[in-house]
Formats: sequence, structure tokens, C-alpha cells
Amino acid sequence: MQQATNTVQFSLDDILNFETRFRASFINALGAYKTPVLIGTCDSYKNTNLAIFNSQIHIGANPPLVGLIVRPDSVERHTLQNILDTKSYTINHITPAIYKQAHQTSARYAKNQSEFNEVGLTPEYKEGIIAPFVKESTIKIALDFVEKIDLTINGTILVIGKVNFVSLPKSSLHQDGFVDLVAAESIASVGLDAYYTANNINRLSYAKPDKPAQEINSNLID
Amino acid sequence: MQQATNTVQFSLDDILNFETRFRASFINALGAYKTPVLIGTCDSYKNTNLAIFNSQIHIGANPPLVGLIVRPDSVERHTLQNILDTKSYTINHITPAIYKQAHQTSARYAKNQSEFNEVGLTPEYKEGIIAPFVKESTIKIALDFVEKIDLTINGTILVIGKVNFVSLPKSSLHQDGFVDLVAAESIASVGLDAYYTANNINRLSYAKPDKPAQEINSNLID
Repeated sequence: MQQATNTVQFSLDDILNFETRFRASFINALGAYKTPVLIGTCDSYKNTNLAIFNSQIHIGANPPLVGLIVRPDSVERHTLQNILDTKSYTINHITPAIYKQAHQTSARYAKNQSEFNEVGLTPEYKEGIIAPFVKESTIKIALDFVEKIDLTINGTILVIGKVNFVSLPKSSLHQDGFVDLVAAESIASVGLDAYYTANNINRLSYAKPDKPAQEINSNLID
Repeated sequence: MQQATNTVQFSLDDILNFETRFRASFINALGAYKTPVLIGTCDSYKNTNLAIFNSQIHIGANPPLVGLIVRPDSVERHTLQNILDTKSYTINHITPAIYKQAHQTSARYAKNQSEFNEVGLTPEYKEGIIAPFVKESTIKIALDFVEKIDLTINGTILVIGKVNFVSLPKSSLHQDGFVDLVAAESIASVGLDAYYTANNINRLSYAKPDKPAQEINSNLID
């Protein structure tokens, strides 16, 4: 580790020599603000599972595709197995009212325990969708499993799903398609255990070479 | 579109029938809070390039691996080509002081224009690292290109790099490895154009089945 006046610097060797938990905390936090979400699934016998993930990633808008990085040696393996078995899963945003329950789903409950029961959240179903939603969430998304890509470099798995249903508060949807996550009370996270609310600075106009981006306003849907 | 009292709901068909820009804005925003970062690269002739990305993803901590989703039909293609040519790139966090310049790097500048010059940010070099950092950034990370995975489903590309250098404010690093991004003034973003600051709610302890997660405090490094 090198220290300039107010700066600390680390090489790859420094990082590889970090104590394991320090390194996990450090590298996860550098990954920066994420959106923690609750992934709802069930197995072939309709036993429900709920797990917090912070590895959601936008893959594309047309068709609407969402990626999720899954670590197979963790509690996340139940979620992955259910997705592969039923091809159905839900993404549920987390609000300050339920963030402690959401975090608690990361405990290593036994396969026959449902995290819904254990942490006190309510499964909610919609006709035609196998996986359970979280009733207490404001933004709820259902996905169909599309593809699984093995990242051989470290054994993690990229799961890609196609959005087939979205429910969100009317008060969060703008006329241009923008979704105001502050209005929806969605929280953000950093690293493995830190949770945040957000304050909007501004929206900026589409950038063009010949003029600086402007602050823009948009209106809610009617 | 269905409306319950305060909720709007969309099916896949609804989403596929959205106007193109509405859909892009909607699906990107549902992807939720991201961390916009500036990716610094140069070509084989040392011509610099700087581009804003919001698709950074944590792949693993040991070794420290970071993923980036790249859309090859966009201004991002210059960044991708430079990464493939030089194997070197930097990730630079964005603060409120530079978010407008950062956003402006998404304009379609010609290949012979450097976004550093065009938007008014300063390239900074470190011995042994080819790609330029952004001097004005508080958290700066250098990576070596490791692997490129083509996501054939929609033509996007997952670029994986290994962290080989990190510089961050001393006032943001905690004794357990946690990095306080609020202290580092890193901003978050939603969708394609909305920028946010964050407020910490809490950190929560490692979750165990037999006891509820507790709020935790940690101290800065000495």
C-alpha cells in the first residue's frame, strides 16, 4: 500500500495479499452502487424461495433482457436451480420498509425453509406466472429464463432472462418511459451490506458533439 | 397497459409495442441504480478516449474481476477497440463536480477527437499503465483485459478485466475493506440520463438463520 497525502493506492499484489473478507468487501464496494433486488422463485413442487441479489445487469431493451450473475457455491444455488427447473423468476425492488428482511434472506436457510416465511415477507402470485412476487415490493418484474452462460474464469454464471411482466407505481412512470426510482422508494446498495436512499441531482439531455448537455424535466404519465 | 388503483402493469407484448426510445428509457431505468463510470483508454498511437458506461458488474474478488457490457453499434466501439488493442483500461468514478462533462462524453465525437479535450477533463498517467486515468476522479482503477464473451442473443459483449491498480481517498476506506462511496463523492445513475447522490441508511451484519441482521458500524483506516 502506498499513501500519497490523502490517497491510498494498491497494486494487484497488495489486493491478492489482502485478508479474504477484507478483499471481498473492498472489491465488492469498488463495484460501486448497485440495486439490491429480491429474486423470487419456486421449485417444481411450488416450494418458494427468496434471495437478495445485487448483480442485476441491463443486457438490452428490445427484446427486454436482464442478466444476473450467480455464484453457484453460495445460497444463490437454490435460486439458480429453481430458475433452471421452472424457467420462471421475479425481480422485486427493495424499499426502506423491508430492507432488513431483504438482507436477512441471505442467511443459509435449509432447502425446506422458505425465506418468505423466515423473514416475514408475503408471496404474491399472478395468473400465468409460476414464480412468486414479493407483495411488499413497489416494482415487480417477471422473467422467463432464456440462457445461461458459464464464466469459466471463476465459475460464476450469467443468467439471462426476458422480461414478460412489469408492475410499478403509477407515480413513478414518466411520459418518456423514465422510471423515477426515488418515487418508487427503491433503495441502492454498496458492497455486501450497505444500503442507501438516493437524491436526484438532474436528468441530462441526449449528448451531441456540438452542444453541452442540458438539464431536462419530464412529466409523469396522465 | 392495465391500471390498478395506483399501479400500472405491462405485459411483454405491451413492452414490445412501446415506441423505441420510450422502451429504451423504461427498461434501462428498471435496471435500476447503477454506477456511471468513465472508461479511459488509448489506441496504439496513444490517442486517448474517454466514455461513460453504466454497465460495470462485479464478477469476483479473488482474483479481482470486473465485467463491462459493451454495445458494439454505439460510441462504445472506440473503447472496445482500444481495450482489445492495448489490453489496458481504467475505471474512474464520477463526482457531482464532473457529472456534466462525464455525460457529455457520450456524444458521437469523431475518432480523431479526444473526449478528454472536448469535455474538459484531464488525462493522468501512472508508470506501467498504458490507459489514461481521469485526474478529477476520486476513485481510479486500472484493469488488464482478460476475456471477451459475445452475448449472441443481442450482439452485446461482456468484457472481463482484472484489477491491477486502485487509488482511492484515504477518507473513504474502512478497516474491514468497505469503501464509503458517499465519502468518495461517487454518484449513482438510473437509466440513460438521471444522476443521483446517495444517503447511507445502514450497514447490516452478516445474516445467519438463527438471528436477525444487526446494524453495524465500522471505522476508517488509521
